[in-house]
Amino acid sequence: MNFASDNVTGISPEIMAALSAANAGVAMPYGQDEYTQRLKTQFNDLFETDVTVFPVATGSAANALALSVMTPPFGAIYCHTESHINVDECGAPEFYTGGAKLVTLPGSQGKILATDLATVLAQAGAGVVHHVQPAAVSLTQATEAGTVYTPDEIGALAEVAKSHRLYLHIDGARFANAVASLGCSPADLTWRAGVDVLCFGATKNGAMAAEAVVFFNQTLAETFGYRRKRSGHLFSKMRFLSAQLLAYIEQDLWLNNANHANQMAQKLAQGLVELPGVELCYPVQANEIFIQLPKALISSLLADGFYFYPWGGENSTTVRLVTAFNTSEADVMAFIEAARRYSSEGLPAVEATF
Amino acid sequence: MNFASDNVTGISPEIMAALSAANAGVAMPYGQDEYTQRLKTQFNDLFETDVTVFPVATGSAANALALSVMTPPFGAIYCHTESHINVDECGAPEFYTGGAKLVTLPGSQGKILATDLATVLAQAGAGVVHHVQPAAVSLTQATEAGTVYTPDEIGALAEVAKSHRLYLHIDGARFANAVASLGCSPADLTWRAGVDVLCFGATKNGAMAAEAVVFFNQTLAETFGYRRKRSGHLFSKMRFLSAQLLAYIEQDLWLNNANHANQMAQKLAQGLVELPGVELCYPVQANEIFIQLPKALISSLLADGFYFYPWGGENSTTVRLVTAFNTSEADVMAFIEAARRYSSEGLPAVEATF
Amino acid sequence: MNFASDNVTGISPEIMAALSAANAGVAMPYGQDEYTQRLKTQFNDLFETDVTVFPVATGSAANALALSVMTPPFGAIYCHTESHINVDECGAPEFYTGGAKLVTLPGSQGKILATDLATVLAQAGAGVVHHVQPAAVSLTQATEAGTVYTPDEIGALAEVAKSHRLYLHIDGARFANAVASLGCSPADLTWRAGVDVLCFGATKNGAMAAEAVVFFNQTLAETFGYRRKRSGHLFSKMRFLSAQLLAYIEQDLWLNNANHANQMAQKLAQGLVELPGVELCYPVQANEIFIQLPKALISSLLADGFYFYPWGGENSTTVRLVTAFNTSEADVMAFIEAARRYSSEGLPAVEATF
Amino acid sequence: MNFASDNVTGISPEIMAALSAANAGVAMPYGQDEYTQRLKTQFNDLFETDVTVFPVATGSAANALALSVMTPPFGAIYCHTESHINVDECGAPEFYTGGAKLVTLPGSQGKILATDLATVLAQAGAGVVHHVQPAAVSLTQATEAGTVYTPDEIGALAEVAKSHRLYLHIDGARFANAVASLGCSPADLTWRAGVDVLCFGATKNGAMAAEAVVFFNQTLAETFGYRRKRSGHLFSKMRFLSAQLLAYIEQDLWLNNANHANQMAQKLAQGLVELPGVELCYPVQANEIFIQLPKALISSLLADGFYFYPWGGENSTTVRLVTAFNTSEADVMAFIEAARRYSSEGLPAVEATF
Repeated sequence: MNFASDNVTGISPEIMAALSAANAGVAMPYGQDEYTQRLKTQFNDLFETDVTVFPVATGSAANALALSVMTPPFGAIYCHTESHINVDECGAPEFYTGGAKLVTLPGSQGKILATDLATVLAQAGAGVVHHVQPAAVSLTQATEAGTVYTPDEIGALAEVAKSHRLYLHIDGARFANAVASLGCSPADLTWRAGVDVLCFGATKNGAMAAEAVVFFNQTLAETFGYRRKRSGHLFSKMRFLSAQLLAYIEQDLWLNNANHANQMAQKLAQGLVELPGVELCYPVQANEIFIQLPKALISSLLADGFYFYPWGGENSTTVRLVTAFNTSEADVMAFIEAARRYSSEGLPAVEATF
Repeated sequence: MNFASDNVTGISPEIMAALSAANAGVAMPYGQDEYTQRLKTQFNDLFETDVTVFPVATGSAANALALSVMTPPFGAIYCHTESHINVDECGAPEFYTGGAKLVTLPGSQGKILATDLATVLAQAGAGVVHHVQPAAVSLTQATEAGTVYTPDEIGALAEVAKSHRLYLHIDGARFANAVASLGCSPADLTWRAGVDVLCFGATKNGAMAAEAVVFFNQTLAETFGYRRKRSGHLFSKMRFLSAQLLAYIEQDLWLNNANHANQMAQKLAQGLVELPGVELCYPVQANEIFIQLPKALISSLLADGFYFYPWGGENSTTVRLVTAFNTSEADVMAFIEAARRYSSEGLPAVEATF
Repeated sequence: MNFASDNVTGISPEIMAALSAANAGVAMPYGQDEYTQRLKTQFNDLFETDVTVFPVATGSAANALALSVMTPPFGAIYCHTESHINVDECGAPEFYTGGAKLVTLPGSQGKILATDLATVLAQAGAGVVHHVQPAAVSLTQATEAGTVYTPDEIGALAEVAKSHRLYLHIDGARFANAVASLGCSPADLTWRAGVDVLCFGATKNGAMAAEAVVFFNQTLAETFGYRRKRSGHLFSKMRFLSAQLLAYIEQDLWLNNANHANQMAQKLAQGLVELPGVELCYPVQANEIFIQLPKALISSLLADGFYFYPWGGENSTTVRLVTAFNTSEADVMAFIEAARRYSSEGLPAVEATF
Repeated sequence: MNFASDNVTGISPEIMAALSAANAGVAMPYGQDEYTQRLKTQFNDLFETDVTVFPVATGSAANALALSVMTPPFGAIYCHTESHINVDECGAPEFYTGGAKLVTLPGSQGKILATDLATVLAQAGAGVVHHVQPAAVSLTQATEAGTVYTPDEIGALAEVAKSHRLYLHIDGARFANAVASLGCSPADLTWRAGVDVLCFGATKNGAMAAEAVVFFNQTLAETFGYRRKRSGHLFSKMRFLSAQLLAYIEQDLWLNNANHANQMAQKLAQGLVELPGVELCYPVQANEIFIQLPKALISSLLADGFYFYPWGGENSTTVRLVTAFNTSEADVMAFIEAARRYSSEGLPAVEATF
C-alpha cells in the first residue's frame, strides 16, 4: 500500500474513458479541436466569470509559464521558503522568466502571512535599479504543509500585493483539495479574493497529465500562447489534454476525487494521532499528512510493505502520508491497524532504512 | 477526409490499449516505474548499441532540449532554411539554448549538402570572439520536403561536422518514415553514420504525445535530466509516456505504421501526377506530398470536403498532402477519383478560399 | 600608418581633457552626478525633441540593451545579413533579448529595401503561435558597406515597420558620419523619419568608450535602467562616461570629427580609383572604403607597413580602409603615393600573407 | 566631506596619467594591444602563479561573467544573504548564468561559516533532478560588513566546497583592502586557499572603471572571452582598460591606496567609538565602518554638510562611513571633531532627514 504521493496513482477511470472517446475520428491540431474550444465555457462556468484557459501537461510547466507573464526578467517573485516553485522544480521559474529571483518568506504551517509580506515589500527597493523589482506573489493552495489558505487570508495577501502593484499567482496543484476542504466556491478562493492567475491541477487528482492555467486577469494571457509553444508545451494532438480536463470538470471529478482523498486523509490522521508518541506536524486540511512517528514504528511499517516518504532530513522522525482519489478505506484501515499493532507490541529491533 | 497533417489523426489502437494497461496499480513517479526502466533495453536493441533515452511529450521539446546540450549559449546551430526548428517552433531552440543562433543553409529538396556545410563552416570564424561559435548541425529526417537523407548523405555531413568538432542532431519527427522508405537499419541511419543525438518521433506516427530523445553520444546526456525537469517536461506519471513508446517499439508499430503511411503517400502521388497540370515539387519518399495542382482543382477538392493545407504563400498553387498510419486506401482512392473527375470536367467556377 | 579601423585610434584631445576635468572633487555615483544630469538637456537640444538618454560604454551593449526593450523573447528582429548585430556581436542581441531571433535580409550596398521588408513581413506569420513574432527592425547608419540611408529611405522603412507595429532601431556606431555625409539634421535622420531608438556612437569617433542610447519613444525606456544595471553596464563613476559624451556634443566634436574622417575617406578613395585595376565596391559615403585592389598592390602596401584588413574571405582581393577623426592628410597622401608608385612599377614578387 | 562610498571619489592621479600616456599612437583593438598583453605577466607576478586575466569595466560585470562559467543554468550558487551579488546587482548573476539560483546563508559579520555551508550542502539534493544543483560558492572579500576572511577561513570554506565539487569565487571589489588588512600575500588569500576565480577590483580603489577577472583555475577561463564579448563587455579601445590595471599593479597603487583607506577608517572609527552612545556594529577591518550613532548626532552631522548613508532600514540608527584612497586625514579629523562637539553640546533639535 502506497502513501508516497498522489502521483503514484494511475488515472481516474472516467478520464481514461474520456481519452478513449476522444480518439474517435480526426481533430484539428494545436487546440483547434472541439474539446479545447469547449474548455473555456466549462471554466467560465466553474469560476463564475470570464477566464482564459490554457491546458498544459505538467504542474512545473503550468507554474513556470504562468510566472513568466507576471514578471520581467529583473523581477522578484515572493513565495514561501518551502514552496514547490522554490524547492522542487530545478529552477523552472528562473528559466522561464529569464532569470527573475524567487524571494522566499518563512511562515508557519506552509503559509505566508500578509503582515510578513508587507514588511518585506516595504524594504524591497522598488524603483531602485540596484535591486530586483517586486513583481508577483505566488501561493501554494493547498500548501506544501497540507494546510489551506482561507479566502480571507488570500484576500489579505492580495491586498498587500495589489498595493505594491504585484500580481498574485496560485500554484494549485492541489487546488481541488483546498476547495473541498473549505467548502467555498472556486470563485471565492481566487478572483474574488484578488488572484490573477491560477494553475489548476488535475494530474495529482486523477488525470494522466493535465493542468489548466486559468487567467482571471486576461491581459496577462496575451503572450501565453507564444510562450507555451516556444517551450514545447503546445501539444499537437491537444484534444487528449483537453479531454482530460473536460471530464475532470464536467463530471465533477475534480471535487469528488478531492473530497474522497481529503476524507481518507482525515480518517488516517485520526487513527494515528491516538497512538503513543505520534504527533501531527500541521493540521490536516487537505490530502497530505505530515506526522511524527516513533522511529521503530516507521521501521516496522516500512518493513511490512507500507510505502511512504520520510520528511525533513536525516535525523527527522517525520513522515509524509498522501492519500489520493483512489485510496481505499480498506488501505487506510490496514495502515492504522498495523500501526496500532506495532505500537502495542513495543519497539521492534528493525532499523528504518530509507 | 483529412490530409492536412499526420497530427490530425488519433492514437493507434495498440497504443491506446497500452495506456489502459499501464493504468493498473501504482507506479513510482518521475521515471522510477518499470515501463520507463524497460525503455532503455528496447532502444538498445532497436539501435544495436548502448544508448541513453529520455521520453518527452512533444517534438519541439525533444529538439530544443537535445540542442540545449549540444551548444553553448554563444554557439551556432547549422540547419536548413526551412527546418522545423528554424521556422515552426517559435524560437524554442533559442529559448532552451540560452540564445544560441540558428544559422540557416538553403538546399534543394529540403536537404543540406555536405559541401555547402563545409563552405559555410570554413568562413564561420571559429575561435574569434566576435562571432557565434559553430557547435552543432541539425538535420530533419524525413525532411520538411518529404524527402529522406541516405546513410551516405548523413555520413558525409557528419564527416564535415566532426572535422569542425560539431555535434550532429537529427530531428526525427518522421524518422520511422525515413527508415521505412530507405529499408536500412536505424543504426545505419544514425550512429553508424555519425549522429550524436536523435529525436525519435512517435506522435505523428500513432502515439498520443510521445517522443524519445536518444543519445548515442552518452556524454551529452549528462545534464539532460536536469534540463528536462527544469523545463517542465518531466512527467510525474511517467509510465504513461513510456508505455506509449514501449508499445510503439515492442509491437513494431513504429515501422508498420510508417510503412503504411508511406505506401498511401505513394499511391496518392501516383494517382495525382497522371492528371493534367499536376506536378510534384519533390520526389515522394516518406508520407508527405508537395504537389502543384491547378487552382480550380484545389478549389473543387476543398469544396468537396477534402481537407489539406495550401503551401508556399499567397500566390502559390502548391498544396501539401499528408498520409498517416491510419489513412485508408479507400480515402486515398476517393481523393484520386474526385481529382480525376474534376480534372476531366474542366475548370469549375468555385474560387479557392484558404 | 593604420587604416584598419576607427577603433585603433586613441581619444580626441578634447575628450581626454574632459576626463581630466571631471576628476575634480567628489560626485555621487551611478548617474546621480551633474554631468549625467546635463546630458539630457544636451541631447534634447541636439535632437530638437524630448528624449531619454542612457550612457553605456560599448556599442554592443548599446545595441543589445536597446533591442532588449523592443522585442519579447519570442520576437523577430529584422536586420541586414551583414549587420554588426547579426555578424559581429557573438550573439549579444540573442542574449539580451532572452532568445529573440534575428531574421536577416540581403540588400545591395549594405541597405535593406522597404519593399523587401514589406514582402518578408507579409509572410512572417504574425499572430500564429508557431512562428517568432515580428517585433523590431534594426538598421545600421552608416551601414556596414560604408554607405548611408537617406531620411527618405529611413522613412519608407519606418512606414513599413509601423504598419506592422514594429519598432525601429538604429545602430548608429557611425551615426555622426552619416549626418556629416548627408548634411541633414539629426532629427530628420531619426525621429522625424520614424526611428524609436538610436544607439548614438562616440567611441569610433573620438571617445574612449562611450555610446548614448537615445529614446525618442520614451515608453520604451521604462525598464532600460534595470536592464543596464543587471547587465553590469551601469558605471559607478558614471561621470566619466557622461563627461565624454558632454564634450562630444557640447564642443561639436561629434560632427567635426566625423566630417574630417569622411573627407579623408573621400580623398583616399579618389586617389586610389584612378589607379589601374582598382575598383570601389560601394560608393564611399562615410569613413569606410571597400575597394578591390590588385593582389600585388595589396602585398606591397602591407609589406611597406601600411595596415588594413582584407575583406570578404580567402580568395577576395577586397580590402577595407577606415579613416578616423585623427587621420592626417599626410597619411592619406602617403598611402596614395605608395599605391601609385607600386602600380607604376608593376607586379612585385612579394605575396600577400594576411 | 563625503563618506558615502568609495565610488564617489575620482581617479588616482597615477591612473589618470596612465590613461593620458596610453593615448599616444594607435593600438590594435579588442585586447590585441601591448597594454593588455602585459597584464598577464603582471598578474602572474602578483599572484605568484600562472593565471588568466580578463579586464572588464564594472564589478557587476566581473562577478556575473565569472559566475557564468562556474555553474550550469540549473545550478545553485551559495552566498551570504547580504552579499552584493544577491542584493545589489539587480539579478545580474541570474541573467548571466541563464537562471541559476543564488542560495543564501546568513552569518555574523558578513561571513559564511564553513560548518553552515557543509550543513546546507548536505541537504542540497545533489544528483536529484527536482533540485537546482550545487555548483559554486561566492564570498565577498572584504565583506559587506567591512570585515575580512582570513586565509584559514577561506581554506575551510574551500575544503567544504571542493568536497562537494563546487567552485569557489571571490567578489573582490575591495580585495586590496583585505590584503592590506591581513598583511598576507594575494596568493595566500586566493589560490593557495583554494579559490578558483577572483574578481579583483580597482574601481573603488582609484581606477576610473576597471576590474580584473583572474582565473587560477584556467580551465574555467575557456569560454570567458566569448561571454564577455556577447555581453558587450569587450572594449574596442581596450588599452584604456588595461592601462588602468597596469598602473594599479605596477605602481603598487592597489596596496598603497588600500592601506591608506584602511588607516583612515581605523582613525575615524577610533575617534568615534569614544563618544557616548556610539557603538561599532562590526570590527573595522577594511575601509568601511558600520556604526550606531545617536539619532541627534546623525542629524547634526548631516546638517553640517558631512555626507554618508544611513544603513539598515527606516528605524535604524546605524550609518555607513566609507573611506577611500584619497580620504584626507584632515577630513577624518574634521568629522571626529564635529562629532565630539555635537556630542558634548547635547541633543540638538534638528531631526535627521536622510
